[in-house]
Amino acid sequence: MHHIPKESMQIEEINDQTVFQQQPVGSPPRSWRTWLIGRPLASADAPHETIGKTIGLAVFASDALSSTAYATQEILVILAAAGSLAFGYAFPISISIVALMAIVVLSYEQTIHAYPNGGGAYIVARENLGEIPAQAAGASLLTDYILTVAVSISSGVAQVVSAFPELLPYRVIIALALTFLVMLVNLRGVRESGIVFAVPSYIFLVMMLLTVGVGVVRLLMGNLNMVDSPPELITTYTTFELVTPFLLLHAFSSGTSAMTGIEAIANGITAFKEPRSRNAGVVLMWMAGILATLFLGITFLAGKIGAVPSEIETVISQIARTVYGDSVLLYLLAVSMTAIILFMAANTAFAGFPRLAAILARDGFLPHQFTYRGSRLVFSTGIVALAVMAGVIVVIFNASVTQMIPLYAIGVFLSFTLSQAGMAHRWWKAGHLSLGEEQVERSSVIHHDPHWLQKMIANGLGAALTAVVTLVFGITKFPDGAWIVVALIPLLVVTFIAIHRHYENLAHQLSLDHVLIYPRVSRQRVIIPISGVHQGTLAGLRYACSISDDVTAIYISMDPEEEEKIKAKWGIWGEGIRLVILKSPYRLLIEPVLEYIEKLCRIRQPNEVITVVVPQFVSRHWWTGILHSQTAFLLRLGLLLRPGVVIIEVPYQVE
Amino acid sequence: MHHIPKESMQIEEINDQTVFQQQPVGSPPRSWRTWLIGRPLASADAPHETIGKTIGLAVFASDALSSTAYATQEILVILAAAGSLAFGYAFPISISIVALMAIVVLSYEQTIHAYPNGGGAYIVARENLGEIPAQAAGASLLTDYILTVAVSISSGVAQVVSAFPELLPYRVIIALALTFLVMLVNLRGVRESGIVFAVPSYIFLVMMLLTVGVGVVRLLMGNLNMVDSPPELITTYTTFELVTPFLLLHAFSSGTSAMTGIEAIANGITAFKEPRSRNAGVVLMWMAGILATLFLGITFLAGKIGAVPSEIETVISQIARTVYGDSVLLYLLAVSMTAIILFMAANTAFAGFPRLAAILARDGFLPHQFTYRGSRLVFSTGIVALAVMAGVIVVIFNASVTQMIPLYAIGVFLSFTLSQAGMAHRWWKAGHLSLGEEQVERSSVIHHDPHWLQKMIANGLGAALTAVVTLVFGITKFPDGAWIVVALIPLLVVTFIAIHRHYENLAHQLSLDHVLIYPRVSRQRVIIPISGVHQGTLAGLRYACSISDDVTAIYISMDPEEEEKIKAKWGIWGEGIRLVILKSPYRLLIEPVLEYIEKLCRIRQPNEVITVVVPQFVSRHWWTGILHSQTAFLLRLGLLLRPGVVIIEVPYQVE
Repeated sequence: MHHIPKESMQIEEINDQTVFQQQPVGSPPRSWRTWLIGRPLASADAPHETIGKTIGLAVFASDALSSTAYATQEILVILAAAGSLAFGYAFPISISIVALMAIVVLSYEQTIHAYPNGGGAYIVARENLGEIPAQAAGASLLTDYILTVAVSISSGVAQVVSAFPELLPYRVIIALALTFLVMLVNLRGVRESGIVFAVPSYIFLVMMLLTVGVGVVRLLMGNLNMVDSPPELITTYTTFELVTPFLLLHAFSSGTSAMTGIEAIANGITAFKEPRSRNAGVVLMWMAGILATLFLGITFLAGKIGAVPSEIETVISQIARTVYGDSVLLYLLAVSMTAIILFMAANTAFAGFPRLAAILARDGFLPHQFTYRGSRLVFSTGIVALAVMAGVIVVIFNASVTQMIPLYAIGVFLSFTLSQAGMAHRWWKAGHLSLGEEQVERSSVIHHDPHWLQKMIANGLGAALTAVVTLVFGITKFPDGAWIVVALIPLLVVTFIAIHRHYENLAHQLSLDHVLIYPRVSRQRVIIPISGVHQGTLAGLRYACSISDDVTAIYISMDPEEEEKIKAKWGIWGEGIRLVILKSPYRLLIEPVLEYIEKLCRIRQPNEVITVVVPQFVSRHWWTGILHSQTAFLLRLGLLLRPGVVIIEVPYQVE
Repeated sequence: MHHIPKESMQIEEINDQTVFQQQPVGSPPRSWRTWLIGRPLASADAPHETIGKTIGLAVFASDALSSTAYATQEILVILAAAGSLAFGYAFPISISIVALMAIVVLSYEQTIHAYPNGGGAYIVARENLGEIPAQAAGASLLTDYILTVAVSISSGVAQVVSAFPELLPYRVIIALALTFLVMLVNLRGVRESGIVFAVPSYIFLVMMLLTVGVGVVRLLMGNLNMVDSPPELITTYTTFELVTPFLLLHAFSSGTSAMTGIEAIANGITAFKEPRSRNAGVVLMWMAGILATLFLGITFLAGKIGAVPSEIETVISQIARTVYGDSVLLYLLAVSMTAIILFMAANTAFAGFPRLAAILARDGFLPHQFTYRGSRLVFSTGIVALAVMAGVIVVIFNASVTQMIPLYAIGVFLSFTLSQAGMAHRWWKAGHLSLGEEQVERSSVIHHDPHWLQKMIANGLGAALTAVVTLVFGITKFPDGAWIVVALIPLLVVTFIAIHRHYENLAHQLSLDHVLIYPRVSRQRVIIPISGVHQGTLAGLRYACSISDDVTAIYISMDPEEEEKIKAKWGIWGEGIRLVILKSPYRLLIEPVLEYIEKLCRIRQPNEVITVVVPQFVSRHWWTGILHSQTAFLLRLGLLLRPGVVIIEVPYQVE
């Protein structure tokens, strides 16, 4: 707590009310938190805590760009079922994925301008599809953010562990420590986390572009070799399948993992400097361009050099090895940056999850604590909640990436589908407005658009394709763990709706629109349960007498000898207050008091309140709490739901 | 909660005080607890809940008798260091252990009569040696009871697991479940647990006596063979040592594990029917006689048949196998009962720990909750605490008996030493009283005793020998885990003394002997922090106005728009109450309120109380608690230690 000199208080008279206005103090409160996450920021500082395009790309693109590290390999693994000749289909498949990506990205670009307060798929679904699709989008995105953190950090740790196998037994601890670290950096603020993580993100970016660029140049110059001693192709199939449409669809679905992460910008628009929609849109386009280039380049080169999907050496590593030839340093840098970017992808989730949670909370579907901005102006509750839940997942899955992967990506694709469908519906509405007419939604305004039909078809196609991918993911990975997400999302939707009902119901009950004229409280019956006659009891008694003239002390008697002592002492110190003795043959302490109060409640008048004053001694040492029976706490539990009964603990401070 | 018809209340007038006396109700309160541990017992039923000699032997002897299952083996294991020829020393060693046992048992017999309220070593040390030795005795006994439960249950589970190896991964869970079961049976009452456990205890007893008896008879008849294919003697020594005095002392110390458990009766006298000292004394003698017979018999037969200490087959099993020859059923019964008695030994600890803890708590060295008798008249807190702590030990040591054994027995022997030393001092005092003179202690009266010198020497010797055993235990087992106990006991002593200081200090501060004349509370300043203007706030406001005319509402403003709305609403609903608006530039909620109250406290008059009324909505669903910020809870934490400030949560019930 900070102390303010009296001069900093200013008294204003408004009507008949005296209003103190506490001036912003010279220096903000300091504590251990200051040391950990930096000095508190005043609300007025909010605009300074936004980020520009350069840092924005680093923060929001890490997740999406990290997927280039494995997407090509995912395609090749599936095609391997039809033998290495089928690898020729990889590049065409990657082109069709980039086409789908283009539709999704363009749709998000429009979303960013239509809904400048962020929320992405959630907001689009809410405005255009209704409550349940919106909550489904929210639930799947939040789930996927949590999984992104767990998977990214675990795979970063897995890379470290494969280099230092003696760390294997500590991988869960290391993953938790890293999660905690990323959480701390994010609690300092999005600007701070961006600056910390921007450098490695850009090094990764440059390294990947360089690798693809050098590869293509060497190919054109005709001196790019085939990959030297590639790892053996191991498939789980004994006989090779034919190249069926289903196999190609499966390879396509697996390759769409390249698209995970592109939703983050649309959810996190509010992190950008003004004009934020424009800045966010530009960053989205940059990111999509880089992502498409890298993904196509890597898949193309993989085909040219004859890279083979393997558990022993990644496709990226094979390409880097072949491209750089004997420049071992460049090769090592490319491979190690790939490991680092996987770990950085966690940071993107920390930028997205808290903002989305705050939007859901603002709409009343999550606890409203998610809307509070912490001392550094970030949504601290969301950041901490994300870290805790990702930590739980890491512990449950023992930091094993293989076990977590099947849960991953379904959520993202479900949100893509809902977002595309929502935008398609929006175009349909735009097409049915006359020129100049406009339809006002909660968070945006729809104008007539002459190109509505083309746009509707594009988004409709995007919705259909992403829906197919979602289904293929859900079905093929179902037994490996996807069932958890398939079960979890409806459960979350139900929870969100229950929370919303609670808040709506509460708002209705607290509303002053239908106010009844309550009588003023005209009578206080005060009950004071005592365990003995001592200074603490007398302090409680003095307090009780100050709020009412109708005070009754209650003593629960379990031992006749003790009872006699209490009666004698009460004669001296009781100040003439009525003492009721309740015999408790079964040595119950709380129940007789509750029963007595219940009896009083039955004869209570509407304008009468029953107040229970519980004398309680408190001590400077927290541990002494367990040395005393927590009567007040238990009485509170027992009486909480009874209208017209109020409990007062009167503390008596003991040194 | 149970409801009582109005007729069952009776009003008595005592002086000017109306006293309701709640009659013992026809049927006691029922709940899930009734189903689990039986119907509640009235305090008046206490005498029926004591046990006679037959059940007493089963309850209190299990622990001691179970040690016959391993004590002989412990001696042989040590002697094995000098080769199998050294096994000849086992029987003489066991005779000297029985002699020591006789001294300790006779001393406890006198303790039982001198201190009929139980407490054993703790009480003897407190009356004769002072506070620190008494607390050391208490700490070491409590520690050992906890270890007895953990070790006994784990070794019982180990026996089961060696029969069904597929249960190995579940041994911790099984051990916890069994601990919980023994806890439940003990919560039903000592009589009930005695009845449940008496049958197997007596079967064990009969089987062991039969085994020894048949063995001796066959030996006398000359047809007892040597053990058939004994397990191979495995020692950790590569060369055999000489039989040194230290080796013999070490073997003696290990064999004294036969004595663990004999302290339980002296601690648990209050469990016996009246005349309880006599009954407890008789049971102690029976137990000692059986224990000595079995221990000598087993060690003797082990020597005669050439039994070998082994991890693969216990000495008891070798004896039973040899004695019963081809009566496989009798052999199996003897071995399985040995497993069961190990498990039963835990029950003895459940009879001893809660009573000892209650005695320490009554003296103010443990939280006074340990003195409460639960609905079944047992010391429920102690029973539950014992089960929880034993469970923690089981989890920490992964239910491995080998790892727990080194921690075990040091506590018992330390308490033996303190008890013997205390009794020796008592005889010295008795010797220095004149005939007919008496010295009154807190819990007993000392008379002159003509045989004081012999008794003092016997107990002094006992103290010296058990001290040597304690030291040998502590030193030889120190690196294997005994250091934990060696460190823990002083820590516990310090804790006990801190608790005692706290209670004494509290009693002093609460005492009315040095009462200051406090002024009556003549003025209430009421502060009501509001988060909005709604039904809940207005309910709080009505309450606030009913206890004082000086009410100030406080609103923490973080957003100018919200602030304007609140001001406008307050104009309509505020009933003319003063509203203070505190600006919070750093979005802090609790700190500005605390600061405001602190400022008021500085100008507070001695006869003035500051009451903070916090409107709080409560709901029937517990989970909604996490949907609201717990302002009242946080304010309470912040204001608990500030004298003259009282917090009232005014609940507003929401459906």
